[in-house]
This record gives sequence, structure tokens and C-alpha cells, in this order.
Amino acid sequence: MENFEFYSPTEFVFGKDTELQVGELLKKYNAKNVFVHYGGGSVIRSGLLGKIKAKLDEAKIKYFELGGAMPNPRSGLVYKGIELCKKNKADFVLAVGGGSAIDSAKAIAAGAKYDGDFWDFYDKLAQVKDALPIGVVLTIPAAGSEGSASAVITQEKGMLKRGIVSEFYRPVFAIINPELTYTLPMYHMAAGIVDMMGHIFERYFTLTKHTELTDRMAEAVLVSIIEAAKVLIDEPYNYDARATICWAGTIAHNGILGVGKQEDWVTHFLEHELSALYDVAHGAGLAVMYPAYMRYVLDVDVERFRRLAVKVFNVKDDLENPRKVALEGIAELERFYQSIKMPISFGELGAKKEDIDKLLATLEINRGKKFGTFKKLTMEDARKIYELACK
Amino acid sequence: MENFEFYSPTEFVFGKDTELQVGELLKKYNAKNVFVHYGGGSVIRSGLLGKIKAKLDEAKIKYFELGGAMPNPRSGLVYKGIELCKKNKADFVLAVGGGSAIDSAKAIAAGAKYDGDFWDFYDKLAQVKDALPIGVVLTIPAAGSEGSASAVITQEKGMLKRGIVSEFYRPVFAIINPELTYTLPMYHMAAGIVDMMGHIFERYFTLTKHTELTDRMAEAVLVSIIEAAKVLIDEPYNYDARATICWAGTIAHNGILGVGKQEDWVTHFLEHELSALYDVAHGAGLAVMYPAYMRYVLDVDVERFRRLAVKVFNVKDDLENPRKVALEGIAELERFYQSIKMPISFGELGAKKEDIDKLLATLEINRGKKFGTFKKLTMEDARKIYELACK
Repeated sequence: MENFEFYSPTEFVFGKDTELQVGELLKKYNAKNVFVHYGGGSVIRSGLLGKIKAKLDEAKIKYFELGGAMPNPRSGLVYKGIELCKKNKADFVLAVGGGSAIDSAKAIAAGAKYDGDFWDFYDKLAQVKDALPIGVVLTIPAAGSEGSASAVITQEKGMLKRGIVSEFYRPVFAIINPELTYTLPMYHMAAGIVDMMGHIFERYFTLTKHTELTDRMAEAVLVSIIEAAKVLIDEPYNYDARATICWAGTIAHNGILGVGKQEDWVTHFLEHELSALYDVAHGAGLAVMYPAYMRYVLDVDVERFRRLAVKVFNVKDDLENPRKVALEGIAELERFYQSIKMPISFGELGAKKEDIDKLLATLEINRGKKFGTFKKLTMEDARKIYELACK
Repeated sequence: MENFEFYSPTEFVFGKDTELQVGELLKKYNAKNVFVHYGGGSVIRSGLLGKIKAKLDEAKIKYFELGGAMPNPRSGLVYKGIELCKKNKADFVLAVGGGSAIDSAKAIAAGAKYDGDFWDFYDKLAQVKDALPIGVVLTIPAAGSEGSASAVITQEKGMLKRGIVSEFYRPVFAIINPELTYTLPMYHMAAGIVDMMGHIFERYFTLTKHTELTDRMAEAVLVSIIEAAKVLIDEPYNYDARATICWAGTIAHNGILGVGKQEDWVTHFLEHELSALYDVAHGAGLAVMYPAYMRYVLDVDVERFRRLAVKVFNVKDDLENPRKVALEGIAELERFYQSIKMPISFGELGAKKEDIDKLLATLEINRGKKFGTFKKLTMEDARKIYELACK
């Protein structure tokens, strides 16, 4: 096990009707002038935004707002939010929505306390040294951004999609009411499921030895996600299955499943180029990339893939054919993705084999010629993985 | 799944040589005049206290100290610590040791900010409304107090052993270096193992339905603890096994394994009377009480005990005899306790059947005539459980 720090200070308030606590929570964290940031119109149509505003009024907390955060959130709206926060002297940022609204809100929270261009942080020209405190009312279980220290933004100039990690990005509180996900189309729920499983995979495939405790916890969460997802196929409004998915999405990315090990985020990196170029759902892109990546790196640690197959995908073990067991696990993962109607190939995603050079070009700009730790990947490796994903 | 709040804001700094970061961490949390609290002489003999003081000197942080926290920490030392903190105007409490030093430090931290008798908090006459910030350098993995909001103190008048929960009791940081446990006698390591498993059991046996995600994580941690304990029998200085035990002890009690469920702390309650009366190690008392409690409440939920038996203790499943499987799991738990040289009966612990009336008398004072949720226990039930523990 490697040395580590685990710091997850977010106050998670989880369950039915918890959004009604938003006023009290903002007061607890001394918010007086809140910038409310959200995505498309669904939080308006569902009545959630109105409910939140009523609670802010009740608590006598001032606020102003900006909607429009889209999947793969963009720099343009971040600049707009920063300007608004500076002009109105916001002292707190409340994100209402999923990963896009939260990530956008995080960048705004940091930018509002910075004199330069917020993209400096994403260009590694500057470090976040301060940010407005961030609160969250979650509506989409997927990104885990409600409990994470990271945020991904796409710079419109050049369509560069990049993430950074900063302790200032940890929300001080996150309200998670699984019922708020009832209006979410199943496609987005499924993409969220793929995303949170991905956050576990990126931590699961590691070269660090003696990480059994964290590995077993990761497997426990994966099994529970898959089980709950299967329930939702037949009973989309099953509260407990939604609750399982919501909480799994949070702990998949608050760090607890990565302690003591070297993590590796290469599949996210490979996918980011897809969602940046085609503006597809990040989770859908991941469903295409994971099986391809896993098959490509399988031989780095067949035993780990075999373990995943047996423990998470219920593949029958075969002592004499561990590689076959491991491969069957990956095939099971693919079948699971298909069962929740996620794409598993470039074609189904709407991506094109002819664009691989384009993907590699931005990948190299974002990640350099070599990246990854579980298996160090060259651009040639990346090409082969993209090709495998074409099927 | 029930509604819940999960809040674990402690910054955990884990791994080799991490105690050398104590100066930086204290600075980060603005400590200028630190009350250092520890237990017996082992932290002096091992050189740890000297190392910490050197780091404080280096960081130009003032400090004063009080040792002497004993297992089942007592009110006398708490009063002394409070007086010292008030006199010296401490602004931070640093606990160096295990659960006893930490729990004692927590009570001191709260008492230092309170005008009345700190025991008011434990008598439920007052609530903790403020406390000095608390930091920890852990030397004994057991109580999980380094990441928990609770602290247990024994009031010397009447030997009442009571715990309270307060968010002010959450340490702001906890340094956990598994190597610091190398000097710990195996008996205390074993008692710690029993204790942390207990913190999981008290959350595992619940009437709440649809808690699979948290249940599986609990099973994952239990399996890992048992595996690591078995390694330590042959290789007491195996770093990764120690690290597993240390981290397991922390997450067993920081709340993550109890989310969304009704918890039940009755076995701890039953045990507290034993360690209060006989001054035995809390973990040793728990090893005696768990098998007795489990057998007594088995029929509340045979399936849950069967699941524990199969998933954690590798008992062969038998669809037609779930109760037999469940009982075999409890027997396996007992064998495990024995394998790490823990007592499993009153006799081995040094407790006496004749004292059961005495135990019941203080139990009733501390918990009332009825207590517990998984199975509501009367004094008559408690008597039967103590009798079962006599063997």
C-alpha cells in the first residue's frame, strides 16, 4: 500500500426531501449572496429551482442566477459566470444539476477569486489558491463532482477538454435526493452509471500491490451498481435502486476507493477526446472505450481482470484458463452496457474511424506523447485502442 | 435505505513517516499553543513523543503536555487536562496514542470551552457547543476515534462508562503511520481488531431494508481485517497487513459503513459494563460479548447471519439449513477470536457470573430498562446474554 491522504470534508445530506434543507445549509455555511448556477431547463420545468428559490427567500438569503451549463461544460459560460459573480460580489456558489453544472460552478468559483483568465488553471499556468465556497443540489448521479476535488471544462478555442484537481473544488455540502433523478431520461441515467463505474475502474487497475481492502470495497460498489441498474430496467422509479446509484456515484469519486494506490485515468483521457469532438455524453463515450482499453491492457495483469470477472461479473472461474475468464469478464461488462442501452462501438456512438488522427492530435496536445501508469501508452497504443473501439 | 448525513471532514494523512508532518499540519490548522495529550510511557519510550516535540519546536509552535490516559479513560485526568488547557489558554489539542488518549483529549477539548462540569455532556444535561480543534497521531488501531465524532469516558464516581457523539469531536487531522503500531503488544493489536470489527457489526445488524451497497462494503472491510490479522499471526511486522488493519479501523468508525441504516450499539453497551467493572480491554470484552449477543438475536434475521457466515467466514452455504449456516458463522467468528488469542467467555476475561446483577444495575442506569433496535432488549434479555457469555 502506498502512502496517501484522504480528505473528503463535504457534508453529504442524502435522501427524500433533503433539497428542502438548502436554506439551512447555506446559512450554516454563512452564505449571504448566492450565485445559483444550473444547466438546461429541466430544473425549471421540474419545479426544483422554484423550490430552492423559495427556500432561499425564506432564509432571507440574496441570490442571482445563471443557467445554461451543458454536458461537456464550456469556457464561454464560465467566463460569463465569473463576470456575474465579480459584479454582484457573490460569497457562495450553489450548483443545481449534474456534473456539468457542478464543474462549471467550480471553475466559476475559482475564477471569481482570480484576477487572470481562469483557463490558466487548466493550462497549468497557475494554481487555484482561493475559490468561493461551493454547495450542490444534485440531480444527475454520474460525475461524482458533488464530492470530488476535480472539474472538467472544455475550452471553446481549440475544443480542449481538460480537468484539474484542487482542494478548493470540494463542495462544502451536497444535497442528494434520489427522487430528483426521476425526471432524468434513462439514457442519461445509464450514461451516469457507466461514468461512475469508470471512476472505480480508473482506480482499480493499478500496479500498486497489497491494496485488497480498497479493491474489495471497489468490487462491493461495482456489484451494487450493476444490481441496482438491473432493477431500474424494469422498475425505473425504484427508490432504493436510485438511492444506491446516487450514493455509489458519490463514493466512486470522493477518493475512498483510490486510497493507497496509484490511480490511472487513461480511459477518461481517451474518452475526453471523443466527447470534445462529437459532443456525446461522457458516459456513452466511456462505454465505448472501456472494453477496448481493457482488452488492450489485459496482459499487464491478467489476474486482476480475472478477479474482476469472477467477483463482479459472476463469471465462472477456471484455474487453467485465467485469461479466458478475464476476457469473459470484459465481454460481460459489454453485455451489461448493452443491457442499459449504452453504445459499445464507435459506430453506435456516432464516432468515425477516419477521425482517429484528429482524436490523437488533441490527445497529444492534452496529455503529451506518453501517458498512463498501469500501462504507459504511446500515441501508437492510443491509436490501436481507438481502432479496437471501432469494432 | 433511510435518509442520512455523512460528514467525515477529517484530513487523514496515512503511511510511513507521516508523523513527521505534524508541524506542518498544526500550522495549516492555525495551532499556536498546543496541548499535547498522551497515554502511558510507550510513546515516550518509543521516541515518538520526542520526535513530535522536535517537529513542534521546528515549526515554532508552543506546547504543554499531560500524559497518563489509560485504557477506559477516566474523568479525573479529563478534569486535570481541562484545567491545564484553561490556565495555559490552549488553542489546539493534539492526542498522541490510541482511542483512550483521543477520547480523553476530545472530552478535554470540549471541557476547555465550557464553564460547567464536562460530565454534563455525558449526563445529557448539556450539549457540546464548542471545542478546541483536535489533531491525532495514532498509535493503536482500534477505536476509530481518530475519524469519529464520538468519545467514551468513565466517570470515576460510580464508574459510569458513557459515550457521546458531537460533530465538534471530529479531529481536523489524523496522522496514521502503521509502523507506529510495531511496538504495540499483540494482545492490544488483537483487542483493536475485535473492536473495529465490532464497529462494523453494530452497523451491520439492522432492520433497515435495501442497504446492500453499505452491507457489501462492510463485508469487504471485515474480510480484509480477518485476512490481515491472519498474516500478522505469522508476520507481526508485515507493513501491508498493519496498514490494512489501521485503515480498516478508521473507516469502520468514520460513518461510511453505517449510512442509510439504523445502527444498534447494544453489544458495546453490554461490554462497557464489563470494562468499567473489571478494567479489561474493551476489545477483549467485545470478543466475549459478540458471540453471545449474536446467538441470542440470531432469529431476528437468520438470513443476515447466514450471509455474514458465507461471505465473511467462508462457511459453505446450505439452502436447506440457513440457521445452521448462520450458527456456523458465529462459531467461526469465535474461532477467529481464539486464533488471535482473545477471550470468548467470562472466565477467560476474568469476569464473574456472580457479578451479573452488578453489571445489570449499572447497565440500567446508563441505558434504561429497554434498549437496542435490532432487537429491543429488556434487562431480562441482557441477563440471558451475559449468561450465554459465561459459557
